[in-house]
Amino acid sequence: MMTGREYVESLRRLRPKIYFMGEEVESVVEHPVFRPHVNAAAMTYELAHDPRYEDLMTARSHLTGEKINRFTHIHQSADDLVKKVKMMRLLGQRTGACFQRCVGFDALNALYITTYDMDMKCGTDYHERLKKYLLYVQKNDLMCAGAMTDVKGDRGLRPHQQADPDLYVHVVKKAEAGIIVRGAKAHITGTANSHEIIVMPTRALGPEDKDYAVSFAVPIDAEGVYVVFGRQPNEVRRLEGVIDCGNPKYGAVGGEALIIFDDVFVPWERVFMCGEYEFAGELVETFATFHRQNYGGCKVGVADVLIGATANIAEYQGVANAPHVVDKLTEMMFMAEACWCGSLACSYEGYKTSSGAYMPNPLLANVTKLLITRFPYEWSRLAQDIAGGLLATCPSEKDYKHPKIGKYVEKYLKGVAGVPTEHRIRMLRLIEALSIGAHLVESLHGAGSPQAQKIMIWRRGDVEAKKKLARTIAGMERDEYFERITGKSESEYFEELLKRRK
Amino acid sequence: MMTGREYVESLRRLRPKIYFMGEEVESVVEHPVFRPHVNAAAMTYELAHDPRYEDLMTARSHLTGEKINRFTHIHQSADDLVKKVKMMRLLGQRTGACFQRCVGFDALNALYITTYDMDMKCGTDYHERLKKYLLYVQKNDLMCAGAMTDVKGDRGLRPHQQADPDLYVHVVKKAEAGIIVRGAKAHITGTANSHEIIVMPTRALGPEDKDYAVSFAVPIDAEGVYVVFGRQPNEVRRLEGVIDCGNPKYGAVGGEALIIFDDVFVPWERVFMCGEYEFAGELVETFATFHRQNYGGCKVGVADVLIGATANIAEYQGVANAPHVVDKLTEMMFMAEACWCGSLACSYEGYKTSSGAYMPNPLLANVTKLLITRFPYEWSRLAQDIAGGLLATCPSEKDYKHPKIGKYVEKYLKGVAGVPTEHRIRMLRLIEALSIGAHLVESLHGAGSPQAQKIMIWRRGDVEAKKKLARTIAGMERDEYFERITGKSESEYFEELLKRRK
Amino acid sequence: MMTGREYVESLRRLRPKIYFMGEEVESVVEHPVFRPHVNAAAMTYELAHDPRYEDLMTARSHLTGEKINRFTHIHQSADDLVKKVKMMRLLGQRTGACFQRCVGFDALNALYITTYDMDMKCGTDYHERLKKYLLYVQKNDLMCAGAMTDVKGDRGLRPHQQADPDLYVHVVKKAEAGIIVRGAKAHITGTANSHEIIVMPTRALGPEDKDYAVSFAVPIDAEGVYVVFGRQPNEVRRLEGVIDCGNPKYGAVGGEALIIFDDVFVPWERVFMCGEYEFAGELVETFATFHRQNYGGCKVGVADVLIGATANIAEYQGVANAPHVVDKLTEMMFMAEACWCGSLACSYEGYKTSSGAYMPNPLLANVTKLLITRFPYEWSRLAQDIAGGLLATCPSEKDYKHPKIGKYVEKYLKGVAGVPTEHRIRMLRLIEALSIGAHLVESLHGAGSPQAQKIMIWRRGDVEAKKKLARTIAGMERDEYFERITGKSESEYFEELLKRRK
Amino acid sequence: MMTGREYVESLRRLRPKIYFMGEEVESVVEHPVFRPHVNAAAMTYELAHDPRYEDLMTARSHLTGEKINRFTHIHQSADDLVKKVKMMRLLGQRTGACFQRCVGFDALNALYITTYDMDMKCGTDYHERLKKYLLYVQKNDLMCAGAMTDVKGDRGLRPHQQADPDLYVHVVKKAEAGIIVRGAKAHITGTANSHEIIVMPTRALGPEDKDYAVSFAVPIDAEGVYVVFGRQPNEVRRLEGVIDCGNPKYGAVGGEALIIFDDVFVPWERVFMCGEYEFAGELVETFATFHRQNYGGCKVGVADVLIGATANIAEYQGVANAPHVVDKLTEMMFMAEACWCGSLACSYEGYKTSSGAYMPNPLLANVTKLLITRFPYEWSRLAQDIAGGLLATCPSEKDYKHPKIGKYVEKYLKGVAGVPTEHRIRMLRLIEALSIGAHLVESLHGAGSPQAQKIMIWRRGDVEAKKKLARTIAGMERDEYFERITGKSESEYFEELLKRRK
Repeated sequence: MMTGREYVESLRRLRPKIYFMGEEVESVVEHPVFRPHVNAAAMTYELAHDPRYEDLMTARSHLTGEKINRFTHIHQSADDLVKKVKMMRLLGQRTGACFQRCVGFDALNALYITTYDMDMKCGTDYHERLKKYLLYVQKNDLMCAGAMTDVKGDRGLRPHQQADPDLYVHVVKKAEAGIIVRGAKAHITGTANSHEIIVMPTRALGPEDKDYAVSFAVPIDAEGVYVVFGRQPNEVRRLEGVIDCGNPKYGAVGGEALIIFDDVFVPWERVFMCGEYEFAGELVETFATFHRQNYGGCKVGVADVLIGATANIAEYQGVANAPHVVDKLTEMMFMAEACWCGSLACSYEGYKTSSGAYMPNPLLANVTKLLITRFPYEWSRLAQDIAGGLLATCPSEKDYKHPKIGKYVEKYLKGVAGVPTEHRIRMLRLIEALSIGAHLVESLHGAGSPQAQKIMIWRRGDVEAKKKLARTIAGMERDEYFERITGKSESEYFEELLKRRK
Repeated sequence: MMTGREYVESLRRLRPKIYFMGEEVESVVEHPVFRPHVNAAAMTYELAHDPRYEDLMTARSHLTGEKINRFTHIHQSADDLVKKVKMMRLLGQRTGACFQRCVGFDALNALYITTYDMDMKCGTDYHERLKKYLLYVQKNDLMCAGAMTDVKGDRGLRPHQQADPDLYVHVVKKAEAGIIVRGAKAHITGTANSHEIIVMPTRALGPEDKDYAVSFAVPIDAEGVYVVFGRQPNEVRRLEGVIDCGNPKYGAVGGEALIIFDDVFVPWERVFMCGEYEFAGELVETFATFHRQNYGGCKVGVADVLIGATANIAEYQGVANAPHVVDKLTEMMFMAEACWCGSLACSYEGYKTSSGAYMPNPLLANVTKLLITRFPYEWSRLAQDIAGGLLATCPSEKDYKHPKIGKYVEKYLKGVAGVPTEHRIRMLRLIEALSIGAHLVESLHGAGSPQAQKIMIWRRGDVEAKKKLARTIAGMERDEYFERITGKSESEYFEELLKRRK
Repeated sequence: MMTGREYVESLRRLRPKIYFMGEEVESVVEHPVFRPHVNAAAMTYELAHDPRYEDLMTARSHLTGEKINRFTHIHQSADDLVKKVKMMRLLGQRTGACFQRCVGFDALNALYITTYDMDMKCGTDYHERLKKYLLYVQKNDLMCAGAMTDVKGDRGLRPHQQADPDLYVHVVKKAEAGIIVRGAKAHITGTANSHEIIVMPTRALGPEDKDYAVSFAVPIDAEGVYVVFGRQPNEVRRLEGVIDCGNPKYGAVGGEALIIFDDVFVPWERVFMCGEYEFAGELVETFATFHRQNYGGCKVGVADVLIGATANIAEYQGVANAPHVVDKLTEMMFMAEACWCGSLACSYEGYKTSSGAYMPNPLLANVTKLLITRFPYEWSRLAQDIAGGLLATCPSEKDYKHPKIGKYVEKYLKGVAGVPTEHRIRMLRLIEALSIGAHLVESLHGAGSPQAQKIMIWRRGDVEAKKKLARTIAGMERDEYFERITGKSESEYFEELLKRRK
Repeated sequence: MMTGREYVESLRRLRPKIYFMGEEVESVVEHPVFRPHVNAAAMTYELAHDPRYEDLMTARSHLTGEKINRFTHIHQSADDLVKKVKMMRLLGQRTGACFQRCVGFDALNALYITTYDMDMKCGTDYHERLKKYLLYVQKNDLMCAGAMTDVKGDRGLRPHQQADPDLYVHVVKKAEAGIIVRGAKAHITGTANSHEIIVMPTRALGPEDKDYAVSFAVPIDAEGVYVVFGRQPNEVRRLEGVIDCGNPKYGAVGGEALIIFDDVFVPWERVFMCGEYEFAGELVETFATFHRQNYGGCKVGVADVLIGATANIAEYQGVANAPHVVDKLTEMMFMAEACWCGSLACSYEGYKTSSGAYMPNPLLANVTKLLITRFPYEWSRLAQDIAGGLLATCPSEKDYKHPKIGKYVEKYLKGVAGVPTEHRIRMLRLIEALSIGAHLVESLHGAGSPQAQKIMIWRRGDVEAKKKLARTIAGMERDEYFERITGKSESEYFEELLKRRK
């Protein structure tokens, strides 16, 4: 297992083609906009070496029996699923940011399950290929980006109906040694500082979309792969200084990028689906379940930081004991823990799949993610409420440190006696970073938009069983227990009961 | 273990003094207003005999090793806690009502833990007394009402400060054979059809309130005990007929009653606290944790029935496929399952107490209950939205069956072809029963009002630890992992990173 | 203008066929279940004679110049519309109930406008007939029920597609003297104590539904009219006593009834639409606008009573100064006043129609009603939160007055010193009456269900204009003001501005 | 009246000391970060010259009878108040931004009223001074910043209790010619591009805080005045290019600044309060009422742009007709119009003060603002929901225009056929600008934080009157109307009514 620092160094050895703000990035390790994302991902490596967190951060490989970083593990029990989300809350607390590595983790687990099912049904050997690839990942402790979401073009049309056939990633050629793929994946977390990219289809597919049923892995610096790093709110403050970044060490959300596959070659041993369109839906749903499981972990870890920051600022401003402040902080904790309950519950209620790997409960995982599309907006509002208007009007670090004007900022932004003005500013900037900006959009759309979760909840909620319960209680279906309890049919029972009354 | 029917018969042998609507009730088994509550409680007995539910509904006594009804069990593991809430959801689904028996169940478990702690600290022998009493309950498969909430008078005053000292239950005399108690407990669920009443104090107490630190058990028909059954919305419809009751077989909420203790004698072997005021707070909090754990179980079981009823009525009225109807049903399921996640999470995260018995996670149990003070209002609104205005304007059963006017009701309340008008009316009445009335008030105040949960969440949320997380990320406290990842101090790191840029 | 008492007496002279609980009702004035509704409606008569309220409660007839009760007035200005909603809030405050008379009021105004438009287009003389009928109503100060909602059967089908053609009211025969109509109207407010019924179609209609395009007025006791009074929660408590009714003098919602038209004859002078299907939509929408305007008036008046009751109970229980109680009461007032803003705004923004009568702003009227489908659920929850669990467990009036048990209830339900126990019970019962039960369903479905308001808001919101605003600001459409301000085209402006920077 | 362009030019003639990002700003007209704010304010000048908007944008001076820009007008009627908010919605629609000029406008009106009351009570001549100053403002069509909020230090302490006495603006010296003031005002909107600053105290004051009771006006470039421009999310994108700004022409919120008064001299004719501490509270409350009135105007105008942008993006992405999209857009419109109702209602319900100027209804103005602290968070969430994840991951303008990588961005960010990729990006960036960032914080804290509005609602809601209503209905106070209606006392009435039943 690599340490955090070894991970950072390992990135220097890669040569990906990454673009940001119109420039090709030489090194993500040296670039002030990219480095915080590198640090956040490095935390997934570093904490694995702290004996306090060993149980959460590491696991035994079911393939080799060796100790591995949990982010490369295939879940062997519900307990593994629970440890996953506890690890995620911990990492959220330690970084106040997205540490990105869960996407590839979830991709590996989803492929592990789906390739097994594909092979059983189709006689293919994807599962073995995947296991070999997994061994490679585990042995080298690699960080993999999981790339599912296509750019989609017109969302009312299916892949093959698009004006441009490349708006979903697809196979353009099959050859003896491998396949050639073309297209682009959008919003891919952690891409710039991953070693590998694992590609999966983005939706259930029909036979006309056979060529779009493709899953594979490539190194980040494979020929023909281009990464365009997306803008995040305020990210260029990282080029200016420290304080105004809010969370200058670890960034914000996951450094999402657009990945272009411009006729990229993939050797067969790295291809995990190629034409089996009838399994695209299962793969998407399995991945989505794993990924939705997470959000009550990582986002709640980040919320812990936000709650703490808000409590600090209340103290710095002299209102920590006002009843409405305590009430709002309590509300924030309540909502965060409610989301946490979701992640715990879907994990504890996980089940074993045919492949032997464990899956979270899909209904509850979707419920968890849907909570996360709502509560963070409310807890962010409460944080902003307590922080006050200065959150959006605070002078810049450069003004604060300005030889002439700085003394005014120092004097007039002072809160309670005893707390340095700089602490107040730093705390405000941290609240700004955590409550304004990409975090909320990420809560909404990461792991699928709310409508996607609603569709799954509707499908998995078993409304027919509930309808039957209601009919039984309303007296339209036989209620065997009632008959045993009363020793009578319903009609006899009511007749007697009411007769006695008169 | 008694069957449902045996339980019903067992009630005939008791002689409690119960009043309702100005009359003394001769037999709760024969009285149309009381009988539905009896039936709901009977379900806790009956399902224990169904092999399908044996695992949930029964347990092995840790005292005797014998199979017992789970409602008399002391939790021996987190798994027991999980089974408890799964049993509760099942019972909610089968009755669409409160089955009442959890309160005494929780009282036994809370006393088991607190008496142990009291004995350790004070050298008393309450724990042994409690175990003997528990054996009696397990052996006879008794239903116990748990009576905690005092009538409280002026809520701004402590017990001994009240104008009338009896506004909290207290010891008025200690004698050789036992104690004499006076006072009243309010809103006590299931009282009228319980065998036993277990009394506990209602709040943390100081030394001046020593006499109020009293816990004990008495049979429901003990001398000096008077039960005044509270009114519930529409309860007298049970005297008229069947359909308009909505849930005519099982009632609604728990048949809450005011219990008066008019100088009741309690022998010492049934006294479990007497003057140890410093343990009143622990007992209250322990009981509250157990009881708040439940609400994402039982209320969600009832919500399942409501969701099913709403889906049925949508179908009966021809709107089952309207997108807004599907969306609202999905919202209902989402909110219900979110509450369910709370009950599961606090149970799975339960822990072993000094007594050996297991407790749910108190923070998450309080979060669960606080969810239940809100979401049921929203899902009830959605049910009423789909059901339509007829929910509040439907003619009575007597009009529907009227020789002259009945044919009009039949003709004009017809929904889609093929569904009998009576089915539509029954389903509307069920939705009315589940969404209007005492259910919501019970969701709000059962197991403590929302403010009580907020206080516990604030206390248990560890805001100091969160403040430290924020300070570490904002650069005010040392971040050891960051130093390891970067191999530098924070200041060196930023200096170098930004220098390179220029 | 009649006084309240004269109105009550006037009802004795009518002979309607009203059924309730399987019995034909002899006199609504003498019947304890009906009388509170009579009293609430009587308040609309009585307050018109109080000089303090003359300006709100009365108007000058634009037909005769005589002073009339405002409930029979055709709005002649936006100021009339504002007075209407102020009158409604006043009446809500004085009755804590639905006073029912607005429906016929709105029907008269909607017909006034639509008959004018019909006559202009079709050359009919409905407007003159309506004016004559209006004179009759004004002169006799009559109360009219407005009957719009059909029973609808399968909501997925249009009127003529229903299995039973009578599921929407329709003309079965046209004769020289008049027409014969058949069908039923559901949820009709105030029917039992109205003098007249005004019938309108319930939806936009196509040519196949021509026979369903019918509007007319009949006396409540016309041959062939049957009224089946709908059940409301707890309405039979009115047969038992006083206190448990909560609002024993004025009832709750509007005494909604199912009205059956079993081949009823209507003379031509009382027919206001007969076959002009293309005006059904306009009539429905006009009526709906008038009716949705009201809900921020009457419901907010009732909310004022609920807020007051909640503040009283907080005081009686000793928690009036707790910060969370003050915060909740403030929230209640906030939500109520927000709804009030809706009624005021749509009224002030009213406009003159071709007929000369004034209409509220339809977009804002729909917004008002949609607010009312949500906020009352929240303010009811807050009222119940403060009131406490006793709200759903309080013993009956008969127990409170019981010779033996009454003393216990008196003693143990005592709140703060100095407030009689009976006051506390009465206040709890009032909160129960206002927050549990039919009020909420009425808020949801009265004047149309939420989905109906959403459709209107979508239609009236002019999304195309908003799209254009966005395109102009985003630089896709010409921004003339920007060009004037800068003296340049957008491209020149940006080029220069950014050039200077470098 | 100046045109927009004349206003812009007028700013070139001023020499304020403004700092931003560690640099002194030479010209706000030429600086890309400041210029958008200038343009937004210029719109308040420019639209006054468009005949279509003359009625809203201009008024007749009550002092001179001349036509003036409405932003310099003293409201002479409720109609003026209504025109004010209609003007504000219009300007929000045309700029998608804060146009800043309302704060000085509200300051003038509040001072007009309060100086009149001060003079009446104290025999001072502040009102005359203010009128002269007003004439100067009207004649020169000046833009005034209104500066109320002090920096406050420890919020638990009053001004004179602070460790540093300068944490609230105060008089440090009174001289013959005028006064010397010291302190700082925070979050002051529009400062950098105003001609004048009008200072007011920030809270009610007691005698110990006499020196803090000071109000005055100074030119923006007065000696000793320093302006530190606050950071806003993404403001430095304006230095880079156009598209990524989202709203490149008009900015975002109001360019809030910290204004330092470092011993600034103010001549007496520009002093409007000096020591009259007992009027500080009235001035604050009056200003707050005017300012809270606005938020359902300007913010709803901006919401119109956001709704339009969201509808456009739905179309560009092929989902414009999905039911959940239409539902969400409808929700956005509903919430926006509900806020609009608030601004309309408090304006129409305005009243005449002793000074002759008109005030909005304070209760409803506070309700309006409190709505704005909540609904914009929800409508922003819905906008982000529809816009999709690209909102937070879209590549930069520089990448889009990059010679090598640009073609990929063009190809892969294409939505539906026929819409240029650039349009999609521009629309996403507009949504980003309007829904992420300072807008929400401004909605929360502008014109006072939510808690301030709650305090006012609680004070103005007249809970005592509501309590009396409840007691009257519950039968504890005499109900005169009921007695008239029934001709009996309540007790007689109930006795007779219930007797008849039996």
